[in-house]
Amino acid sequence: MKKLVLAYSGGLDTSYCAVHLSKDLGYEVHAVSVNTGGFTKTEIEHIESNAYKMGVSTYQNIDAIQTFYEKIVKYLIFGNVLKNNTYPLSVSSERIIQALEIINYANEIGATAIAHGSTGAGNDQVRFDMIFQTFAPDIEIITPIRDKKLSRQEEIEYLKSNGIDMNWEKSQYSVNKGLWGTSVGGAETLTSSKSLPENAYPSQLEAKEPKQIELGFTNGELTSIDGAKDESHKLIEKLNDIASAYAIGRDIHVGDTIVGIKGRVGFEAAASLILVKAHHLLEKHTLSKWQLQHKEYLSSFYGMHLHEGLYLDPVMRNMESFLQSSQKSVTGKVFVTLKPYQFLLDGIKSPFDLMNAGFGTYGEENKAWAADDAKGFIKIYSNAQKIYQHVNKDS
Amino acid sequence: MKKLVLAYSGGLDTSYCAVHLSKDLGYEVHAVSVNTGGFTKTEIEHIESNAYKMGVSTYQNIDAIQTFYEKIVKYLIFGNVLKNNTYPLSVSSERIIQALEIINYANEIGATAIAHGSTGAGNDQVRFDMIFQTFAPDIEIITPIRDKKLSRQEEIEYLKSNGIDMNWEKSQYSVNKGLWGTSVGGAETLTSSKSLPENAYPSQLEAKEPKQIELGFTNGELTSIDGAKDESHKLIEKLNDIASAYAIGRDIHVGDTIVGIKGRVGFEAAASLILVKAHHLLEKHTLSKWQLQHKEYLSSFYGMHLHEGLYLDPVMRNMESFLQSSQKSVTGKVFVTLKPYQFLLDGIKSPFDLMNAGFGTYGEENKAWAADDAKGFIKIYSNAQKIYQHVNKDS
Amino acid sequence: MKKLVLAYSGGLDTSYCAVHLSKDLGYEVHAVSVNTGGFTKTEIEHIESNAYKMGVSTYQNIDAIQTFYEKIVKYLIFGNVLKNNTYPLSVSSERIIQALEIINYANEIGATAIAHGSTGAGNDQVRFDMIFQTFAPDIEIITPIRDKKLSRQEEIEYLKSNGIDMNWEKSQYSVNKGLWGTSVGGAETLTSSKSLPENAYPSQLEAKEPKQIELGFTNGELTSIDGAKDESHKLIEKLNDIASAYAIGRDIHVGDTIVGIKGRVGFEAAASLILVKAHHLLEKHTLSKWQLQHKEYLSSFYGMHLHEGLYLDPVMRNMESFLQSSQKSVTGKVFVTLKPYQFLLDGIKSPFDLMNAGFGTYGEENKAWAADDAKGFIKIYSNAQKIYQHVNKDS
Amino acid sequence: MKKLVLAYSGGLDTSYCAVHLSKDLGYEVHAVSVNTGGFTKTEIEHIESNAYKMGVSTYQNIDAIQTFYEKIVKYLIFGNVLKNNTYPLSVSSERIIQALEIINYANEIGATAIAHGSTGAGNDQVRFDMIFQTFAPDIEIITPIRDKKLSRQEEIEYLKSNGIDMNWEKSQYSVNKGLWGTSVGGAETLTSSKSLPENAYPSQLEAKEPKQIELGFTNGELTSIDGAKDESHKLIEKLNDIASAYAIGRDIHVGDTIVGIKGRVGFEAAASLILVKAHHLLEKHTLSKWQLQHKEYLSSFYGMHLHEGLYLDPVMRNMESFLQSSQKSVTGKVFVTLKPYQFLLDGIKSPFDLMNAGFGTYGEENKAWAADDAKGFIKIYSNAQKIYQHVNKDS
Repeated sequence: MKKLVLAYSGGLDTSYCAVHLSKDLGYEVHAVSVNTGGFTKTEIEHIESNAYKMGVSTYQNIDAIQTFYEKIVKYLIFGNVLKNNTYPLSVSSERIIQALEIINYANEIGATAIAHGSTGAGNDQVRFDMIFQTFAPDIEIITPIRDKKLSRQEEIEYLKSNGIDMNWEKSQYSVNKGLWGTSVGGAETLTSSKSLPENAYPSQLEAKEPKQIELGFTNGELTSIDGAKDESHKLIEKLNDIASAYAIGRDIHVGDTIVGIKGRVGFEAAASLILVKAHHLLEKHTLSKWQLQHKEYLSSFYGMHLHEGLYLDPVMRNMESFLQSSQKSVTGKVFVTLKPYQFLLDGIKSPFDLMNAGFGTYGEENKAWAADDAKGFIKIYSNAQKIYQHVNKDS
Repeated sequence: MKKLVLAYSGGLDTSYCAVHLSKDLGYEVHAVSVNTGGFTKTEIEHIESNAYKMGVSTYQNIDAIQTFYEKIVKYLIFGNVLKNNTYPLSVSSERIIQALEIINYANEIGATAIAHGSTGAGNDQVRFDMIFQTFAPDIEIITPIRDKKLSRQEEIEYLKSNGIDMNWEKSQYSVNKGLWGTSVGGAETLTSSKSLPENAYPSQLEAKEPKQIELGFTNGELTSIDGAKDESHKLIEKLNDIASAYAIGRDIHVGDTIVGIKGRVGFEAAASLILVKAHHLLEKHTLSKWQLQHKEYLSSFYGMHLHEGLYLDPVMRNMESFLQSSQKSVTGKVFVTLKPYQFLLDGIKSPFDLMNAGFGTYGEENKAWAADDAKGFIKIYSNAQKIYQHVNKDS
Repeated sequence: MKKLVLAYSGGLDTSYCAVHLSKDLGYEVHAVSVNTGGFTKTEIEHIESNAYKMGVSTYQNIDAIQTFYEKIVKYLIFGNVLKNNTYPLSVSSERIIQALEIINYANEIGATAIAHGSTGAGNDQVRFDMIFQTFAPDIEIITPIRDKKLSRQEEIEYLKSNGIDMNWEKSQYSVNKGLWGTSVGGAETLTSSKSLPENAYPSQLEAKEPKQIELGFTNGELTSIDGAKDESHKLIEKLNDIASAYAIGRDIHVGDTIVGIKGRVGFEAAASLILVKAHHLLEKHTLSKWQLQHKEYLSSFYGMHLHEGLYLDPVMRNMESFLQSSQKSVTGKVFVTLKPYQFLLDGIKSPFDLMNAGFGTYGEENKAWAADDAKGFIKIYSNAQKIYQHVNKDS
Repeated sequence: MKKLVLAYSGGLDTSYCAVHLSKDLGYEVHAVSVNTGGFTKTEIEHIESNAYKMGVSTYQNIDAIQTFYEKIVKYLIFGNVLKNNTYPLSVSSERIIQALEIINYANEIGATAIAHGSTGAGNDQVRFDMIFQTFAPDIEIITPIRDKKLSRQEEIEYLKSNGIDMNWEKSQYSVNKGLWGTSVGGAETLTSSKSLPENAYPSQLEAKEPKQIELGFTNGELTSIDGAKDESHKLIEKLNDIASAYAIGRDIHVGDTIVGIKGRVGFEAAASLILVKAHHLLEKHTLSKWQLQHKEYLSSFYGMHLHEGLYLDPVMRNMESFLQSSQKSVTGKVFVTLKPYQFLLDGIKSPFDLMNAGFGTYGEENKAWAADDAKGFIKIYSNAQKIYQHVNKDS
């Protein structure tokens, strides 16, 4: 029997796929889900139990949280990447890791086909198919949902007719949770003008007392919270727990999809937003003007390419080299105050702080240079402009 | 007697200059201050009264608020410019307009010298001198504070010895107010780690009830608030009044000065931050992906050049042409909810909204293309990546 | 009978289309070719005669040379655009104009279908289809060559069986001629290692005596050659005639196609290369450092987007605004010496020349500033670097 | 006696300095020249002999050719860097290496002062002083030429009065030779309109018969010529010898100096130009579209920063990381034909060639995708443009 790997979420669409692929198409279905930070142990058990109900041969949950951090999240922090200054690219980057893990698994078990539940209208199909086709040109890709365009009702009927009668009630908001953020879609995000109500967000305001925390960075990576060291991906989860209690990190992103239309999605990403902003502040103190400037260019494109599924383009590795190299002195502590719905960056301490380095203080008199030096500087600094205006007389 | 124009603020430093220049150096001193949005009528009267006490021949307050908006602020909004994603460049851009107005005035009245009170350690001297030297190469620039490095006490003594005995007590925080924001410096901003206390900020929290407002944009310019139309610079002032009651728009910026050191400054800029973010959201709905991307590059450099005093570089005019051209369809309403210390962007309405334009909806099945179209797209879209990986085999 | 517009070149492929569309599919075929500078009067008459032999209802040759210049070529000169520093984007930009003219014509005559002879492997299909679909979503696009993949022999047989027996011998090199250059493809360009032989290029070396010519530019546009004024597009043709006699402007380009594969093509583009380089030299004398720098970024992307068929993206109009604005002072004469196979840029004269503007001469002592000014400049200019090295000690 | 290191070239200016510094100022003068590829053994002996005539305590010639290659030239090749698409930045980068070697030497021998012969009008003073001040803040910098502004005649008289009577006749053209090119200044380069005569260039046309050579690259570095392997810097010298016989690589550059004025200089740089262009061609075959695009941005700024003396800015190291990373697959052979005054790039061979990789050939029918795939691709690729035009109706 031909082996097939199914990217399985436990939901209606991929449950339909599981049954259809095994019963109608005769595949030996190996269900797999990739944990990029979204699953609790209970949820995994629930998915597994569902998978077997659908008749899959095996089910496997791959823990890819650390891989996710090492391969992508780390660079998003190095680059202070927020797509269009808003979105931490959580889903965009999770899909890449999921695709990489799935194709790897498919190759390992010798599958001849891969199935996933993406529709034909979104970004995910592109991210999945590109990586599958690139790393396994001979493996067939099967996408029943994209091809058949069944309604939820038709899928439910089909499952019933195959003896599976479960409660498939659709929740009001579709939620995608991962290490780097949780996306939230609903009726409001299909409009341009409406915001999401409080209760659409997974975390609710619990902590009300402002609290300052201290984030420790080493070469750009989060290595401690309030002095307690741990692996970065674990600290991110911890930070998320702490900050989500303040309902921090909610926003709505409107962006360009790979397929050319605009899409709108809500998200909650407390740890991502705090980390990106805290890291950026530390960089403002420790990097040169030109490092900050050129990082902006590269990071913005790094985010665009990642979002558009071009993770395997070799330019991404080149950019990662630049970003890694730029983190040499991004070491120190950042002080952040958490408050309901917001956070404040209070300041930093770093041995590499370029401010107050004994070379004169902004706006204050100093010993590093004299008034005449400043005058000489200005005279020559303005040469090009003076010549231009002299020649062109176009004030 | 030789005419001299003195950039006069009413404070101790420029008061010292006024007396010194007229009494010791024998100039006919014409004091001038340029209003870029920071002065109330009472304050202007107070400055004028002070000026005459210092023995100036004339005093003039030039209203440059609209000029400021038309020449710079407008483009900062078009470009969504926040230096290092933080600072609205309020002081940086005010100084440019002040320099332009002062040199213009000096030329008009036939002055042979200009004096200003900048020190030799900051950005302002560069911005002033560059524009003065460029537009009036023959006018001498006199900077007693930069040259003499007197202490406040020495200045006070000097004034006393010239019969001027006023209360020159230094306020705890030095504040610079203008249309585009208020900067706040104090003991904390001289450190890297401390934030400013509540009371350092000029506006205090007064309004507590959340309120949604509607900002109307026409070709990128703010043209109405809650439906009430007015000139843009007046609407900015109005927005600032409304939002400052919520204590919105406070932050601290750490940045690179023109003289190569890092500087840190607090600011309060409710209208700027709301406008930049609201305008950007409208652009995300109405501009193409590549417009958003290339605007980022240009706007970031526009901000850098402006900050560094290069306003007269002709490239600034070229960038302004790009920015103006990009605003063609940036027309519509943005809904913003004001809350204590923060604001939320709720959504937009625009006849040029590219979302939900009848071409398929993100993630939903649609009639604009079929599953096979998507598959063909992905196949060819991934060609380059497939070829590279095939040739390089470096997963 | 349903009207169809056929993009007709007179060659075998589109002749097959003409017969097939009218005889087999029953369309009223209106053949059209768009002259972007490649056709002589004799050639047009020949194409027209062929068209009617194939049974078309009407044939029209649209003269789009000036349109081509105004809409695209002008900006390629303003931007000094050479794709990957090599290729003047001649074919890439011709196709855009041809598509625009054809869809315009189709709309005018009320056609319900458009046919073109592109294959499914290249760039042209993308450029054509995108513009057709965008400006006439309801017009059907028919591409027999792409769909049927017939061999030349099958096409010849088909034509014979329809009573058309002509000599369709394939020339050794396929040549595409236009105002902005001539592309040349052949057996060698299908390899990575072989160059084209002399005789593959349309122009052969005739003039051997070096000759200096003077190119007059006004706001970036070519307005005279050796003092003789004319319209820019006519001067380009004239320059091409002069310089082609020296066999100038040959090269081979390897580039990325829209469909993700690399393509290699020879070209001869005497006027384009001379103009781009001469114009750039004039800019080096008349533009500021930052104009030159930012033009590079924008022009490179302008070329990329144009090449990839994104001419209708609004960002192209924004870039054109920037480029137009940057040409304000690009006025003057450029002296170019033509020699066999190469040209030399001798120098320029311009009222806007920023060199030797009386502000000091490079490397020579001067009166614009003193040694102490230079020392002050260097002291402060190096502040950031000194602080960084002081703090980081990482020589 | 206080030790002083003098950057000594053997010419009139630095000979004057040597005598002045030892006799008038009482320094123990240690003359040093840094060989970045410009000196023959005979020349070094001549300089050494001159140095001792001027009364220096020691003379040392530091061989920095390999260092020059490893620290800078390599990255200029990786980045295909030609300033303003013209100038290989030979002098700009030599000065950096010279400054680094000199400050190193000064620290080694415990000098308390450094002297160099730069004027106050050019770039070199900035490059030298910045690196000296950064790495040895306590060493005094002495620049008699910049400070005293003596005429050549005054210097000659001074030397005569100190018993040194040599022939200091100024050559018609000032020439600066190094591994990466030779600059040539003269009466013509002080104008904007005149080119240099044949005889101003150091190499004259000797070889007339066209010859194809094969350049072997390994990870972006030149590792063989015609199959003969050697160290890269030696191969560059060899290539320069071969190609200079064809009088290849002459041009004139007009550029922006660090002090804000425009400067014009002739140069001859056969090896640099051939290598940059050959390397770029190999990259066009082996790098992805986005690698080529982003390399352009970074390389252009790398060249600007290097030119402006910012070599020690940490962003340069980050860019070098990017560039090094991008060379992973830039391995292969490039075929170049040398002809009098010019060279042609014939083609390449590389195991990493992305062209003809079995994935379909440009413009030809292929098996990698079908007509319907292409149609699907175009349909979705043009979505954004269609939506924009549909909403904006602004053809």
